[in-house]
This record gives sequence, C-alpha cells and structure tokens, in this order.
Amino acid sequence: MTSKNQEVPYKIYLTEDELPKYWLNMRPDLPNKPAPMLHPGTLKPCTPEDLYPVFCEECVAQELNGADSLVEIPEAVRNFYRMYRPSPLVRAYCLEEILDTPAKIYYKFEGSNTSGSHKLNSAIAQVYYAKQQGITALSTETGAGQWGTALAMACAYFGIDLKVFMVKISSQQKPYRKAVMETYGAQVIPSPSDTTAAGRKILEAMPDTGGSLGCAISEAIEVSAGTAHSRYVLGSVMNHVLLHQSVIGLEVEAAMEKYGIKPDVIIGCAGGGSNLGGLIAPFMSKKLKGQADTRFIAVEPASCPSFTRGRFAYDFGDTGQTTPLVKMYTLGSGFIPDTNHAGGLRYHGMNSVLSQLYHDGFMEARSYRQNDVFEAASLFARSEGTLPAPESSHAIKAAIDEALACKESGEEKTILFGLSGTGYFDMAAYMAYNAGTLTDDIPSDEALARGFATLPPVE
Amino acid sequence: MTSKNQEVPYKIYLTEDELPKYWLNMRPDLPNKPAPMLHPGTLKPCTPEDLYPVFCEECVAQELNGADSLVEIPEAVRNFYRMYRPSPLVRAYCLEEILDTPAKIYYKFEGSNTSGSHKLNSAIAQVYYAKQQGITALSTETGAGQWGTALAMACAYFGIDLKVFMVKISSQQKPYRKAVMETYGAQVIPSPSDTTAAGRKILEAMPDTGGSLGCAISEAIEVSAGTAHSRYVLGSVMNHVLLHQSVIGLEVEAAMEKYGIKPDVIIGCAGGGSNLGGLIAPFMSKKLKGQADTRFIAVEPASCPSFTRGRFAYDFGDTGQTTPLVKMYTLGSGFIPDTNHAGGLRYHGMNSVLSQLYHDGFMEARSYRQNDVFEAASLFARSEGTLPAPESSHAIKAAIDEALACKESGEEKTILFGLSGTGYFDMAAYMAYNAGTLTDDIPSDEALARGFATLPPVE
Repeated sequence: MTSKNQEVPYKIYLTEDELPKYWLNMRPDLPNKPAPMLHPGTLKPCTPEDLYPVFCEECVAQELNGADSLVEIPEAVRNFYRMYRPSPLVRAYCLEEILDTPAKIYYKFEGSNTSGSHKLNSAIAQVYYAKQQGITALSTETGAGQWGTALAMACAYFGIDLKVFMVKISSQQKPYRKAVMETYGAQVIPSPSDTTAAGRKILEAMPDTGGSLGCAISEAIEVSAGTAHSRYVLGSVMNHVLLHQSVIGLEVEAAMEKYGIKPDVIIGCAGGGSNLGGLIAPFMSKKLKGQADTRFIAVEPASCPSFTRGRFAYDFGDTGQTTPLVKMYTLGSGFIPDTNHAGGLRYHGMNSVLSQLYHDGFMEARSYRQNDVFEAASLFARSEGTLPAPESSHAIKAAIDEALACKESGEEKTILFGLSGTGYFDMAAYMAYNAGTLTDDIPSDEALARGFATLPPVE
Repeated sequence: MTSKNQEVPYKIYLTEDELPKYWLNMRPDLPNKPAPMLHPGTLKPCTPEDLYPVFCEECVAQELNGADSLVEIPEAVRNFYRMYRPSPLVRAYCLEEILDTPAKIYYKFEGSNTSGSHKLNSAIAQVYYAKQQGITALSTETGAGQWGTALAMACAYFGIDLKVFMVKISSQQKPYRKAVMETYGAQVIPSPSDTTAAGRKILEAMPDTGGSLGCAISEAIEVSAGTAHSRYVLGSVMNHVLLHQSVIGLEVEAAMEKYGIKPDVIIGCAGGGSNLGGLIAPFMSKKLKGQADTRFIAVEPASCPSFTRGRFAYDFGDTGQTTPLVKMYTLGSGFIPDTNHAGGLRYHGMNSVLSQLYHDGFMEARSYRQNDVFEAASLFARSEGTLPAPESSHAIKAAIDEALACKESGEEKTILFGLSGTGYFDMAAYMAYNAGTLTDDIPSDEALARGFATLPPVE
C-alpha cells in the first residue's frame, strides 16, 4: 500500500501496565494563570462552598486546583478505563499515500467505545466521585449526544439516575442517540423544555429555537442545584473535565516515546475544549517548560468561532446567565449559532486554560466551513476506513491542510490530530452533504454583535 | 471492580508481527467431507468453470479447495487488516461479576471498525481478488447492512463500483446504514426491486414482502452473472468466506496461547455461518484431530431456526432458485422468516461445512426468542459498555446461560463467544424492545412445511 518505512505499526496500543495512573493538570506550568472564576452575585472569586450546591465536591476541588500537576486516577476509574482503553494511536499510512505527502500523520482514535467519543473519560470519573459522595442522581446537557451517551453508560455502571437535557435540534437530527441513552437507562428531555423555569423563559422569547448547549446547561443546572441528592455534571469547558481528558494526551505521549516519535504539530477540534485540552496536555506542559517547540492548532466551525472571532472576556457559561463568570474566549452567552451538524462544537465559550494559552500565543486557532469539513471527512472515511464525527472532522481538515503544506514545502513534519469520535449517529448530516443540501452559514458581524451585547459588564 | 485474579488483562491485543499470515481451512480435517456443490441444471458436481460467470476466479478456487489447510493472506489484504485488526480479545470481568459466576468469559470483539462487524474481513479479500482479476464492478445483497457497509468500504479502498441489494425491511429499519454505504460510494437498492427479473417475479407473488436475504441474493446474482466486467460477492454461507473469517479464530488462538487460556465452550451466532465458522476454525480443527474436547454452540433466532428445526438436504442458496445446490441445514429456499431485527440471521440455509459438523455431532445448536436476546443485550451493554448487534446478542444470551449453569454447578469453565458486531444502526430494534413492542413470533409447523415444500427433489 505504501512505500514508506513501516517500522511504526499502523496502530500503537499501550499495555495495561503502561496506562496512565495520574491525570495531568497544565495550570501549574502556565506563565500567566487563568483569571479566577467569579461568583455572579458578588463578583468575587468563587470559593469551593459557592460551587458545592452544583458540582460534586471532588470535582470542585479539581476545578479550583491550579497547583498540583499530577492527580491520581482512582482505581475504580482505571478499572473502567481498562474496558475501552488504551485507545489506539494510529499512523494514517493510507491517508498519507492518498495525499502524497512527506508528512507523517498520526491520530489518536477515541471513538471505539459505545459513546462514540472521548467523553467517556470524564463521565466515568465524575460519576465515580458522585457515587463516593452519596449522590444518587445527576443531570446534564448534551449537544451531539456523545456526552449524554457517555454519562448514561457511566451512570448505568455505577447505578446512578440520570436526566439529560438534549439540544432540541440534535435530538431531532439524532433520534437513535436518544435511544442509546434510554437503553442505558437515562431520561432524555429535548431542550429548551417546559420542565424548567430557564427552559420556559427561553421558549417564551424564541418558541422556534433549535436550542443550544447554553440553554440546555441552564436547564440541567436548575434541576440539580441546591438539591441534596442530585448534582450537575458537565462534559466540557471546565478545568476538571480537561484534567480527566489528559488521559488522551498521556497515552499518546507514552505510545510515541516507545517509537521515538516527536510531534511537530498537534491539532484538535475545539467546542468547549475538553478533547483538545486533553490531547495537548503533556505536550503543552513541555512547551511551557521550554522543552519542546510544538505547534498547537485549535479548530472550530466557522458558524461558532469562539477563538477566531470571539472576545477574551468574563462571561457566563450558560444562556440563562446563572453560572459563575469565567474569563474566556466567548461569543457571548446570548449567541445562538446557525444550524450546524457539529453539535458538540456549538458552544459560545471556551475552557479558560485554553483561552489563556491562545491569548498568550502558545496556541493557534482556525475555523472551517461545514462543506469543507465534510469533504475532508469523506476522504478520511474512504482512505482510513473510519467514518468520523463531524466535530472530529474539523481536526481532520486541518491535518490534511497541514499535510498538503508539507507536500508543497517538502517538509517531513510529524502531524498528530485527535480523532475524538465516530459519525455513526450523524448520518443525517452525511446524507445532507452527499445530497449537496448542507447549509453552510456563518454568523454576520451583526449576529456576533448581538452575542457580544449579552456579555456582562465585568473586567 | 472484581475480586478475581486479574493477571489476564481486560483486553488482549496481538502485535502486528503476531497477526495471522495464513487463513485456516477446516475441510481437510473433517472426517466426513461436505457433499459437493451441484450444478442446478445437470445435478453434477460444480466445476470451477461453472462458477466463473458468477464469482471471481480466486474465490472459486478457494470455494472448491477442500485439500489445503493453510491459504496465504495476500500482502495487500494484510495491510488493510492492519488498519482495524487485531480486534481485541476481551475478558468480560464486569459481566462475570454481575452474573456472580465462577466461569471465565471471553469475547472476541469484531465491531470496532466502521462496518460495525466481522464482515470486513472477507469483503476486503474478495474485492482484492476482483481487482486482481481486472473486474471493475461488484454486486451483492445485504441484510442488516453490515455486509453491504463492509463491502462499500472495501470497494472504496480499491476503487471498484458497487451495487448493493438491501433486504427491504432492513433498509426501512436502518436508513442510516444505507447512508453509510452511500458515503462510501455504493449504490443501494431495496430488495425485492423492479430492477431485476428475479425481483419483479417475487414482487408479483408477494407485493408486500419485506424481502429476505434469499430474494436479494437472486437479484444481486442476476445483475452480475455472465457479464465480463462485474461479479457477484457474498458475505456469508460460502466456504471461501469462512476461510477469510478464520482470521478471527486464529487471532483468538494466538492471544489465548500468550496467556495459557484454553476455552471449554465456544459460542457464536449463526446466520449463514461466517462469523461462527471463522471463530471456531482453529479450535474445531484441533477437536477433529483429537487434540481438544471443546464444546461448540451455534445460536440462531427462533424465528429462523435453520439448524434446530431445519433439514439436512440439498437446496438452493437463493429464493429465485438460480444458484448451485448445496447440501446444508435449510428451511427451504422459499421460507421467509417473520420480522426479526437480527437481519443478519434471516437466512434459510447454513454453510455446508458447519452443517456437516453439526450433522456429525461435533457442534451443538440452540435457538432463542427475540425478547430474551434483547434482554441479554441490554445487560451486556450496561455491564461491558459495548452496545451489541442483535445478531451477536444471540451469542451473548447463550454465553450468559452457560455462565449461569457454571454458577449452579460451581464449575470454573472458560467460555468464549464471538461479539461479531455493534448495534449502533439497530436502535429501532432497541427502541421497540425498550417500549415492549418487539414482535416475537416463531414459525408454525405449517410455515416450516411451506418452506420445506420448496426443497428440490435431490438426494
């Protein structure tokens, strides 16, 4: 198939005893620390007690922990990880050959579990901590459905009740995702719904909205906040989620070390940032310590361009403006993106650590339009076999562009990207792309201005 | 999670240099050879020339090769295998714990490629041989859609045109399967269709039929047979397909040898027999040579019970009665099973080698009803994470029953089953099961008699 030296196998798997025993927290290595999370009422930095009514205590501790580089992975979580990890680090020999590029392309494939994505890495950790604390129910939101599925799987495993608010447009595009969550015992509610005050308020203002992650978050928080038995869990954006996802990058690092591979460019799609942040964690820490000069590229949809057209400002995490304020790249909590099939990337904000890294020039960002992304997805599917998630396909598109640039320049760069999930529940999107009917809108400056107008007046 | 000794990892992966370089043909080891395939006109044993108008020459050679135990896997096929193989051999620690059984349960998981099943193992081989022969187009049938998807992936990889006749009821239950095949460039036609004489004949007799694999085979053969540029390919039943699928069992054997594991019972679901035949190949050869006393169990749906209620007789492979005659366990080519969501198991016949092995007492068979199978599937999904295909869930049900029998008897048996695929495109079935609306009919004796009446009068 390829004339290249194939001493590196198609897929590198770690053995069980090579699997990470600690998660990696990037924050201690940042030269400029992310601004503290602020209480929305007092505008003072959040204390752990401020967050306990919403999140599990251990997640709060991890969220606010900027000091410890390493956090031990609990044994029960490592046991669950062993059911579906390590994920393979794949050398994309066939894609390289089709592109006729001197670049070496690797991808870390997180999609070969039933949730279909990396989300399970944090879901199982958060459910474990809830169980430890005596919590019996959880609530969350889901966009594309991958997070909701992952959480349903984790809750089924530990015997915890789950209520999932699913972005309405996604629940319509993906009825079978809903069915998977229900098979794992979760209750799935399209959002905005009339079951919460936040949902009813949004429905009143925009009865025909397809919803957004921001709306769904408001609803999911509302049903848990302040209750004794239930807590809210979030699948991205938060620092403790990035911490759990560092297992991705740590496995890559260990696998690459076995074969003496050093990545020149690392690429990940960025919605709330958990997949990207997890993938880059150990490599970014090395860069921040001056031990490597890796390039990092965050890729987002042109329809929801938090990095590339957003502002670095304090903002709410949800549309209902109930969460603590986070300093991040944001389009404003009132921004509602045009229809886009990468439901997992339809979020107005971005993790605060990644925002700081981008702001300080340690990471690049770019955006792509939907049709270009699906073109890359189809090429990848046909050459490498796996049908990718629309979200992950943003990273594929950037990796292909980088590899083609190498073809132009003759450079033999090593490119690593995160294949965060599969597209098996996204076939409506592929059908639209195949039929040439995929909408491909990007927000006007006016639409962005309307979003920015919802930013709170906080410096 | 479990108190058992965990020296065996959750998942055993072979390294690339441990992957099989040869497929294994069971036929040389059979004490009674399968009866020869007969030409439907002359009723004489088929010659290679009889089959060349339909199948690729190399597949014909393999089909008729009862002498060679080992057949080399071409390098191009091994390269493609490396994109998605080895598949993991998984120790079902969590399922064991939930069942509280002393049994050790292993499963070989073939579902972590985009086709979602083992079918890709033979698809890529058959497409490779077609390409070698200068064939530019292929036609086939698909039931659940797994074979069609696998073949679409293989055809996309080697640049071959593909026409897929998809059992109508499956194409209605699984529109997204169709979309996956189309994304890989295949043309998908619900069967019976009005594009072939065979399809029109069946539609005339039964305008409302949901179709069957037998019908779809007739149509797929018709469009290729006798043409210069196109050939027909089949995803199961045939001996050359079982040969390619032996890669499953050979990987299991190598993985088990690394850890000194010996299976006492091996279980597989059986539609046409390719997954089962591939899984058991090396172990059955050992049994036939007197080197092991492994039990083998074929599991089929009660709605289409070829082994457990069928006859061992010469029969056609297709409803249109155009194929050579094969001596096999069959319900008659005119048998059309009740609606059942295990589309891959809705075939009236069974591979001839497996039929001979069953007839000679080297293998057991049992059937299960649909609701019991989905109950096992849900338990498996919740404990082991992976959401199984309805077909594979027949094997899960049998493995659970065997493990519970061990609990009863206190025996620490080692149980191996084939998890041939995932259920991600079968959510309509899971939705029906969750809602309690799954039909669960089994054929009456009269329905069976109508099928047997279509058997040809050949001894």
